[in-house]
Amino acid sequence: MAFEITPDDLGDLARGAALLGTGGGGDPTIGRTLVSEALRRNGPVTVIDTDELDDDSLIIPTALIGAPSVLVERLPRGTEPISALRALENHLGRKATATMPIECGGINSTIPLFVASQLGIPVVDADGMGRAFPELQMETFAIYGVSGSPLAIADEHGHTAILDTGDDNKSLEGWARVLAIKIGGVSYIAEYSMNGAEARRTAIPGTLSLALRLGRTLREARENHHDPADALSETLSDTLYGHGESIFTGKIVDVERRTAEGFTRGTATIAGFDSDSTCTIDFQNEFLVARIDGDTRVVVPDLITVLHLETGEPITAEALRYGQRVRVFAISTPEMMRTPEALNVFGPSAFGLGEEFVPFEHRAQAALR
Amino acid sequence: MAFEITPDDLGDLARGAALLGTGGGGDPTIGRTLVSEALRRNGPVTVIDTDELDDDSLIIPTALIGAPSVLVERLPRGTEPISALRALENHLGRKATATMPIECGGINSTIPLFVASQLGIPVVDADGMGRAFPELQMETFAIYGVSGSPLAIADEHGHTAILDTGDDNKSLEGWARVLAIKIGGVSYIAEYSMNGAEARRTAIPGTLSLALRLGRTLREARENHHDPADALSETLSDTLYGHGESIFTGKIVDVERRTAEGFTRGTATIAGFDSDSTCTIDFQNEFLVARIDGDTRVVVPDLITVLHLETGEPITAEALRYGQRVRVFAISTPEMMRTPEALNVFGPSAFGLGEEFVPFEHRAQAALR
Repeated sequence: MAFEITPDDLGDLARGAALLGTGGGGDPTIGRTLVSEALRRNGPVTVIDTDELDDDSLIIPTALIGAPSVLVERLPRGTEPISALRALENHLGRKATATMPIECGGINSTIPLFVASQLGIPVVDADGMGRAFPELQMETFAIYGVSGSPLAIADEHGHTAILDTGDDNKSLEGWARVLAIKIGGVSYIAEYSMNGAEARRTAIPGTLSLALRLGRTLREARENHHDPADALSETLSDTLYGHGESIFTGKIVDVERRTAEGFTRGTATIAGFDSDSTCTIDFQNEFLVARIDGDTRVVVPDLITVLHLETGEPITAEALRYGQRVRVFAISTPEMMRTPEALNVFGPSAFGLGEEFVPFEHRAQAALR
Repeated sequence: MAFEITPDDLGDLARGAALLGTGGGGDPTIGRTLVSEALRRNGPVTVIDTDELDDDSLIIPTALIGAPSVLVERLPRGTEPISALRALENHLGRKATATMPIECGGINSTIPLFVASQLGIPVVDADGMGRAFPELQMETFAIYGVSGSPLAIADEHGHTAILDTGDDNKSLEGWARVLAIKIGGVSYIAEYSMNGAEARRTAIPGTLSLALRLGRTLREARENHHDPADALSETLSDTLYGHGESIFTGKIVDVERRTAEGFTRGTATIAGFDSDSTCTIDFQNEFLVARIDGDTRVVVPDLITVLHLETGEPITAEALRYGQRVRVFAISTPEMMRTPEALNVFGPSAFGLGEEFVPFEHRAQAALR
């Protein structure tokens, strides 16, 4: 059902998007400033369900591409995502009837809200990742038959490029990435344009409102002194994600982090409070795999999040520090992200991990036996 | 006046294009194979003067971009420049009536011939460099008001990108370069589209036929045991270039060469046969400055060429070797390449050289006094 997003919602949205960012996706508070100003200027943005889209509507998702760490020193002028969308509209010869996130985790949950506010179009309550992933081909849109091409990319001078690599979304990612680096490390894109029928077939529905709900859940748990893990589990239980569970609590005793090939890679080690157990989390921008005493407990595409133990606030991989008291909270992915086609694109092997994907709630049940 | 190019012309064209390549521009013999097959299959290509173009004709120049050294290991499939031209035609919503070189020196003298042969359109006898230069903004087209944007770039899979950086041709160069590197080091482009009136205003006329004539001149001099320098000087005397002169003969005693930032940079040192004089030539892909006993004699955009002393064949910067007996032959540039606007884009300072541009024939006269 359609609803409106106002400036008052942005705190919860940013918190929930940080959670779904699973350690990566960029700090959504940076996008928040941009959106907040636009909403105050232009009024609230309407968020619509995929069910409310006409079959022949034109949805053009918008996003940021690049290194989120650069963004802090290179704030968007605000014209960039609009330039990208306009360039793609011109190329397609049609106007967008709505925009949509390609990634509901991290900063990319907010960019479409900014675009929608500036252009007076609605945002579709759905995305193509259901979380954050590092590369553009890691999209349910692509997996279920919508091509990322043509893609428009824009800089702050209104310079644009239209990339068309046919069905080869991995090449599209590579081409867009080198341009984003050339442009200065961060750029803005419009891509995966589709009609309403395609959105219903390929998008993960309800993920923008989910981010909002999860952010609100964490805030209210803190305000009411409830356990944030219990609150999250309850909120998740009636969503496509279904299952959320605290898998470890402890103190961070080591963070090994390096920047390689444009990614932040590393491992965090957490020592349990009441046992000799340790939990390690490997990350490549996002948290990829959590192991307890060497045994895999959660692996991508299931979601691994790290929360401040006391506040319940999500912590990114960049912000992990020695001595932090944290909770590792896992969330299962929707079924459409666990099909063989989906695992082929963003399962463990896509990140160079050797393990098979096993839904974490199955391992959890086995561990309880 | 219009004329036809047949496979029999390609040897002379390649030789003349190597001369105008001034040490860079890529080995035209590689493009020659591609063109030769196309001409045998499709018949001769018609070459037309800029004067023969209708004001509203659409000329789309075609070229290779990237490291010529990569080309040897990555021969074009042949579809790439056609894909680039077609992508730009689609973007512009019009068919090209002709193609044209952007660079008459080196391999880029041949790419438009291939395209013209495949598509059955004529090639315009003109270009935008009058020689070879390393970057896309170094074009009289750009200097006199035709933008390089929109530019189409294509790979061997038919993947394409359309880049539009407005009037900022240096950004266009940067964007196209990173894509060419991503594509594998070499790619094909269509850009600087213009009408007939713009071609007459901004292109250097007659440079394709000049390459052909200079190549023929060198061959005939060798066949008839004439002095190649005298023959070149005579051929050049009734062209826009006007002045060509041997400035040094000797033996190469040192070549210092390094690859940096995608360029081949270095210095060749030549010891005179009959004196203690030495000539040094600094290069960045192309020969940039020739000094005799430390005094600048020829500097970019004037043309510095190095010829085998006996055969008169041009030698590229990559092919310079210790012990070669060579002649350094300088050629003055057309007036439209020596204006303040032109020197701003491809004069000495554009290559980080400290010297003022002085037309080399003025220095030559001064030296004779």
